[in-house]
Amino acid sequence: LTNTNEPIGVAVVGAGYWGPNLIRNLGNHPGFELRAVCDLDLDRAHKAVGRYSTVRVTSDLDEILDDTRIGAVAVATPPSTHLPVALACLGADKHVLIEKPLAPSTADARKLVDEAEARDLVLMCDHTFCYTPAVQRIREMIRQGVIGDVQYVDSVRINLGLIQPDINVFWDLAPHDLSILDFILPDDRRPVMVAAQGADPIAAGKECVGYLTLQLDGGAIAHAHVNWLSPTKIRTTIVGGSTHMLVWDDLQTSQKLSMFDRGVDLRADSLQGETREQALISYRVGDIIAPALPEIEALHAVAGEFEASIREHRAPLTDGHAGLRVLDILERADDSLASGGVAVPVSGEL
Amino acid sequence: LTNTNEPIGVAVVGAGYWGPNLIRNLGNHPGFELRAVCDLDLDRAHKAVGRYSTVRVTSDLDEILDDTRIGAVAVATPPSTHLPVALACLGADKHVLIEKPLAPSTADARKLVDEAEARDLVLMCDHTFCYTPAVQRIREMIRQGVIGDVQYVDSVRINLGLIQPDINVFWDLAPHDLSILDFILPDDRRPVMVAAQGADPIAAGKECVGYLTLQLDGGAIAHAHVNWLSPTKIRTTIVGGSTHMLVWDDLQTSQKLSMFDRGVDLRADSLQGETREQALISYRVGDIIAPALPEIEALHAVAGEFEASIREHRAPLTDGHAGLRVLDILERADDSLASGGVAVPVSGEL
Amino acid sequence: LTNTNEPIGVAVVGAGYWGPNLIRNLGNHPGFELRAVCDLDLDRAHKAVGRYSTVRVTSDLDEILDDTRIGAVAVATPPSTHLPVALACLGADKHVLIEKPLAPSTADARKLVDEAEARDLVLMCDHTFCYTPAVQRIREMIRQGVIGDVQYVDSVRINLGLIQPDINVFWDLAPHDLSILDFILPDDRRPVMVAAQGADPIAAGKECVGYLTLQLDGGAIAHAHVNWLSPTKIRTTIVGGSTHMLVWDDLQTSQKLSMFDRGVDLRADSLQGETREQALISYRVGDIIAPALPEIEALHAVAGEFEASIREHRAPLTDGHAGLRVLDILERADDSLASGGVAVPVSGEL
Amino acid sequence: LTNTNEPIGVAVVGAGYWGPNLIRNLGNHPGFELRAVCDLDLDRAHKAVGRYSTVRVTSDLDEILDDTRIGAVAVATPPSTHLPVALACLGADKHVLIEKPLAPSTADARKLVDEAEARDLVLMCDHTFCYTPAVQRIREMIRQGVIGDVQYVDSVRINLGLIQPDINVFWDLAPHDLSILDFILPDDRRPVMVAAQGADPIAAGKECVGYLTLQLDGGAIAHAHVNWLSPTKIRTTIVGGSTHMLVWDDLQTSQKLSMFDRGVDLRADSLQGETREQALISYRVGDIIAPALPEIEALHAVAGEFEASIREHRAPLTDGHAGLRVLDILERADDSLASGGVAVPVSGEL
Repeated sequence: LTNTNEPIGVAVVGAGYWGPNLIRNLGNHPGFELRAVCDLDLDRAHKAVGRYSTVRVTSDLDEILDDTRIGAVAVATPPSTHLPVALACLGADKHVLIEKPLAPSTADARKLVDEAEARDLVLMCDHTFCYTPAVQRIREMIRQGVIGDVQYVDSVRINLGLIQPDINVFWDLAPHDLSILDFILPDDRRPVMVAAQGADPIAAGKECVGYLTLQLDGGAIAHAHVNWLSPTKIRTTIVGGSTHMLVWDDLQTSQKLSMFDRGVDLRADSLQGETREQALISYRVGDIIAPALPEIEALHAVAGEFEASIREHRAPLTDGHAGLRVLDILERADDSLASGGVAVPVSGEL
Repeated sequence: LTNTNEPIGVAVVGAGYWGPNLIRNLGNHPGFELRAVCDLDLDRAHKAVGRYSTVRVTSDLDEILDDTRIGAVAVATPPSTHLPVALACLGADKHVLIEKPLAPSTADARKLVDEAEARDLVLMCDHTFCYTPAVQRIREMIRQGVIGDVQYVDSVRINLGLIQPDINVFWDLAPHDLSILDFILPDDRRPVMVAAQGADPIAAGKECVGYLTLQLDGGAIAHAHVNWLSPTKIRTTIVGGSTHMLVWDDLQTSQKLSMFDRGVDLRADSLQGETREQALISYRVGDIIAPALPEIEALHAVAGEFEASIREHRAPLTDGHAGLRVLDILERADDSLASGGVAVPVSGEL
Repeated sequence: LTNTNEPIGVAVVGAGYWGPNLIRNLGNHPGFELRAVCDLDLDRAHKAVGRYSTVRVTSDLDEILDDTRIGAVAVATPPSTHLPVALACLGADKHVLIEKPLAPSTADARKLVDEAEARDLVLMCDHTFCYTPAVQRIREMIRQGVIGDVQYVDSVRINLGLIQPDINVFWDLAPHDLSILDFILPDDRRPVMVAAQGADPIAAGKECVGYLTLQLDGGAIAHAHVNWLSPTKIRTTIVGGSTHMLVWDDLQTSQKLSMFDRGVDLRADSLQGETREQALISYRVGDIIAPALPEIEALHAVAGEFEASIREHRAPLTDGHAGLRVLDILERADDSLASGGVAVPVSGEL
Repeated sequence: LTNTNEPIGVAVVGAGYWGPNLIRNLGNHPGFELRAVCDLDLDRAHKAVGRYSTVRVTSDLDEILDDTRIGAVAVATPPSTHLPVALACLGADKHVLIEKPLAPSTADARKLVDEAEARDLVLMCDHTFCYTPAVQRIREMIRQGVIGDVQYVDSVRINLGLIQPDINVFWDLAPHDLSILDFILPDDRRPVMVAAQGADPIAAGKECVGYLTLQLDGGAIAHAHVNWLSPTKIRTTIVGGSTHMLVWDDLQTSQKLSMFDRGVDLRADSLQGETREQALISYRVGDIIAPALPEIEALHAVAGEFEASIREHRAPLTDGHAGLRVLDILERADDSLASGGVAVPVSGEL
């Protein structure tokens, strides 16, 4: 199947919120042939493929599992069903792309990782933001030493959001920030402790406003603010490095990513025999460079990485271990919340 | 002295970073007559009044204390000297306006508050931001019930800043956010616990990046991000209320304050039998209203309140107790930092 | 055909730049059944419907004309072919939706308008921007007298753009601004004169930077800046009214439309015995209101209006006459350009 | 007087809108000693120097003229009085800095230029914006060939403004844009023709909304939009060059000046055998560089240039001829307005 240049037969399971995006991108990608869409709600599945589609629609997962022309499955069902659905797909020898979070718990996620490795199949997490041109470029800049040592990361992801029926704001929004962190940080800056503060000011029965603080290896810090109640939408990540600093504003269209020369050392020097007033004047000394970024839809790149990892018989950039690491921090954040915000160690190697 | 309409004789002690602003504003205010400027560095004092000034300049505080035509003193010396300087002024029967923080510790600050009360003198904290038109309007909106119950406050005050020689970023920047909170929050939303997370990623010997989380009475939350290392300058405060939400962006010139209709309740309703996709579409339902704000320099209003509280023989809006409450939270935040970020009770009535 | 509730059979002719958007929107709209896509380049047509489509694809226009189940045709071929293609469709008794500009000249466009009227068929111009929620709301506000008399309109539509092979920047971009103007202005504010200034600073052989000035009935003015060479993208329209003013910034996501209270009269009053300095202080006196706008794709609303005008047997909001008026101004602007920028009368009733 | 390092004695005549800024900046500048302030309204003059000033205040111009310790005068009286006041100062052998516009007409301005040259005195126009760090940098970039050949300049200066009693919006606001143009453009890009379009939609008796189009030598174009009626404040200038483009947004605080790589040539190439859709995707290809700018008040630099030109016995950067060129365009714009917007030749060498 994967040795030829034939498109890989693929199915999408789950046609709710995210499924239609997978259907559209896998359907348009030359590396795949979309063979079926499966949802328990057949009407929803029909709606997702549209009125003029030749793609098979079914409410029976076995039809997918039994179809030997289907070599890969994208799973976009509710998280609570990820384990049985993805296990069944792996058991039928199909590569699996799975919507975040990988599973509702690290224990479940570990089973998926083990099964995929036992069967030598690709298990890829759809950490979509990691495939945006901005995040790809940030990772590259950090890995190539362009901004020096990473000193802190501050991320804000707030909006008027839907109060989820089953999960709190950490589990809904923080996977984005945590998967991005996991993707961009070098190996010597892994999270070692996490502390969480949350609030449920509207009595929704779960945290609607949340703050995560991660201590990173080497003394750096990362912080994420996630919030369903903010009237203003903000999607900004700042990465402070020892020589340069990055600001990624995902809501900007013309200048999503800016790199600033760092001026703090100069500040310290200027203290010698000078007043605060004089020092303040030279606050911002460096130029800003905003690199041009290609205009590529992130899910198209997700599809490409899924195809490439299948064909090249290798782990994808965002594999099951990446998904596990994100889940581990979310679980430890729950522990921190339960204990009043005290910092809790992260499990480390996963 | 204070019963007539004569301008009140005033002196400014300390002509460093903030002093010149006090000199300019007290000098221009019709309620005061600027009689002297005092600084140990006489050159600096001369520079602060300018080359063409008739205002007396001295390096001897006693000259101020002994001048009976001086009824009030503004103190803008380094915080470590606030206690002796202000105590001397109060001891000489002069009303005192004092730059934030009121003192380096609650213990010192308490002495100032007690002395002022014992001598029936005005002790006012220069919590400048509380006198901006935006904060005045926010307080008014909250007090008048315009936005409903306060549910959360999120404040970001970040910039490439000068690394202070003697204090960390919490003590440098958070007094602004804490004094604003103290000013705008109703009495049933006082902070009850504080947790602090900080980092010193550049090995400056003190926290340069900090996060404060305050639990407020009644289940609300407040959070402040203060940061000396951010390449991008942000000065934004969000106040979430049960019926409306406010966004104050102090860097905007034409629309500093926006009030949003709240749509979260609609979100919850829309969950009945609907998909997340449909609910997401109606995310922002309400209109935005941006009230026109007068263009007044905050320090001019500070001067006006200082004058009025002296003449009307009453406590100023930001009195010594307000200063004490801010200091108490800063000290408790130090405790939290020392204990790894655990939430620490705030002292309450001060 | 049009008396029942059956979806109207529709075809799209032209699958180049804009055709795929029509295919997607007409294909998703419940009022239509997409029966065929026609393009001389069959590969392009196949690509436009996608790999999994049941929609018929053809390079032969006669197949469309002969299909009696097709009651309506959307034409998105190059402007130079609009006349023969649309005339053929009208001649086969099909309602026609046509991409802007209606035709390459008013003479051609007039033939289309006459033919549609003679055959009692709908001829609709795809003036897409008129169907955005922002423009719909602006029209409504003007018509309902919310902003008073319209005094001026200033429109900026600039970007790094593709140098079109056959038309200049006026014919490429100004149809958007002119069709919006035509849509929102009341009948007593029609353009009466047009002057055009342009430049070709890159020696492209046609104007790449252009400025249009329209004198409106009643002394008002409208101005449009269109530009292919601008590194920064701007899409802003200001509508000044006698009581309020509107700013529509199409690149904003959260606040596309803002209504400002008007303060100029206060300015005039404040001149009595006051200095300019004092007057300047009160520059902006009014509140800003940003109405919530529904999130609807404009082309979906275009499809809806096309369907409704067919079923209700009436002229669409943007009918052939609207297209004619836009073309007339473009032709008169060419005349003005040729004569060095002198203002030229607009033809008026069309 | 001017051969020593002694500060130059200076007086300010006119303490209305702009005078206080000159008083503050000349008073703070080490190159000058502020000796007197003159205004017919003595109260206004007293208010301008403040309550604690040693600077002499007078309503009698002769006191200034007769004071031999005063070597230079800054004139900030109403334009209609510029000729007699400045002529008197020059006649008393004083160097003159004069607020824009230099005079109410080119004829008057010419008299000032001739008188200053006859007496070998400095005559400097206070074209303040030319001394901002952004404009200085733009001029430098253009002169050094950084952005290639200048192809177009587009300037927007709009705001809710005071309706001036004696002049229209062109004479009030366009001097800023015209003086900047005069300053930054290379000698082979001088304006050769000007066309003006204006409107008075509020029946103020003069143009309140205005558009200027300048044809520049070599086929380039410049355009300025000036407007007293705009609810939104915009101060943006775009300079298109053959290799790079500049955007100066004076209302930004952190990124006033941005330089964009130019991508239009690539666009043209990409047309070979490709569709418009593909070409559109690669619209913006280049990086953005935002140079760090020093934080200097423009009027401080004006004072410095005034001092330097006096001491070095040379023409200032913005001399009387620059003022004349600006006035000439304003007068020609009046001619264009009177003739319905037709382009009118500019006088050229002045």
